[in-house]
Amino acid sequence: METKEYLKYIVEEIHTTIVATVDDEGLPVTAAIDMMDYDNDSLYFLTAKGKGFYDRLTKRQFLALTAMKGEDTMSSIAVSIRGKVRDLGHDKIPELFKKNPYMHQIYPTEESMKALTVFQIYEGTGEWFDLSKKPIERASFNFGKVEIKREGYFVTDNCIGCGSCLSVCPQSCIITTGIPYVIEQEHCLHCGNCLNTCPAGAVVRR
Amino acid sequence: METKEYLKYIVEEIHTTIVATVDDEGLPVTAAIDMMDYDNDSLYFLTAKGKGFYDRLTKRQFLALTAMKGEDTMSSIAVSIRGKVRDLGHDKIPELFKKNPYMHQIYPTEESMKALTVFQIYEGTGEWFDLSKKPIERASFNFGKVEIKREGYFVTDNCIGCGSCLSVCPQSCIITTGIPYVIEQEHCLHCGNCLNTCPAGAVVRR
Repeated sequence: METKEYLKYIVEEIHTTIVATVDDEGLPVTAAIDMMDYDNDSLYFLTAKGKGFYDRLTKRQFLALTAMKGEDTMSSIAVSIRGKVRDLGHDKIPELFKKNPYMHQIYPTEESMKALTVFQIYEGTGEWFDLSKKPIERASFNFGKVEIKREGYFVTDNCIGCGSCLSVCPQSCIITTGIPYVIEQEHCLHCGNCLNTCPAGAVVRR
Repeated sequence: METKEYLKYIVEEIHTTIVATVDDEGLPVTAAIDMMDYDNDSLYFLTAKGKGFYDRLTKRQFLALTAMKGEDTMSSIAVSIRGKVRDLGHDKIPELFKKNPYMHQIYPTEESMKALTVFQIYEGTGEWFDLSKKPIERASFNFGKVEIKREGYFVTDNCIGCGSCLSVCPQSCIITTGIPYVIEQEHCLHCGNCLNTCPAGAVVRR
């Protein structure tokens, strides 16, 4: 999928996400926040300026979120994003209320809407994690001016082709048609068993 | 509800939660993690030692999570917890797999389960937030040796009973039968409108 499709999926298919910010002691705080709109390379949400969440956003200008869909773990899809945020003020509020009319139930009057401001997540990285597939499927994406960091486990030229890693891999996602073996990144759980088991020290984590 | 009932609700009614940790740069990271068991004053979950999540947990020994239930925003209940975690090692793994048999689909063999370790959230604070009620309902709880910090907006003796706050309160949760007025904490959104509007500076945020 293209980045915009991931952002659309978050807003239209999931909508309520769990976001995390960091407090003054450097500890995480989570809350449920609706993602109310998207465009090619950003997401939009609202918050009230009286909330601790607003203070933390303003201070760090950074947010992490995970949006999840699915009845149970084995049918779940999780989309996570980490990125920079900026306060856009009030201008976009009428548009966001129009697209999300239920907001009038929480802030029923013009007067009460005074508390609100719009934030934009304008650059960041994302990860798609689909547990409904066997083996699991994961993918990365980015938006704005960020480069994707390819994180995961990789087999180096030190691989001796002994096969020790195969029995400990929960997702059977190591390809052994050549040496070095290759870990299928899109199916890897990042559990680390291959690295811990390899007698040749051929597996690295990046 | 008593604390144990909140913990039970998270494990049995929601199960998959979004957790947040903090990376080496002090920025938040989120992921979907199942809460697999509870007792009077703790929650239990599993993770693989090869994950960045494991490293971050081990380093800070602290976690925030929000568990959410509901088809859409206006019928949603969110339970959030912040607390200390400790690594319990492998002993509880067979019990957790027995209670959560779907885990065998992700880690199908004894060998592959080697990657896993059990964490316990053993003390912390929690918040219940029910948007399906009109006005909204919130409640706090704690477990382990933590005291509840009562956060929110409060009216002080400076209140002059002018009524300015009433029209800006989105939840109509300010009681005016006496002076000073009283904010019904269990219904307050923490939007901050009352504080910003009060001409007497009588509203404080704690």
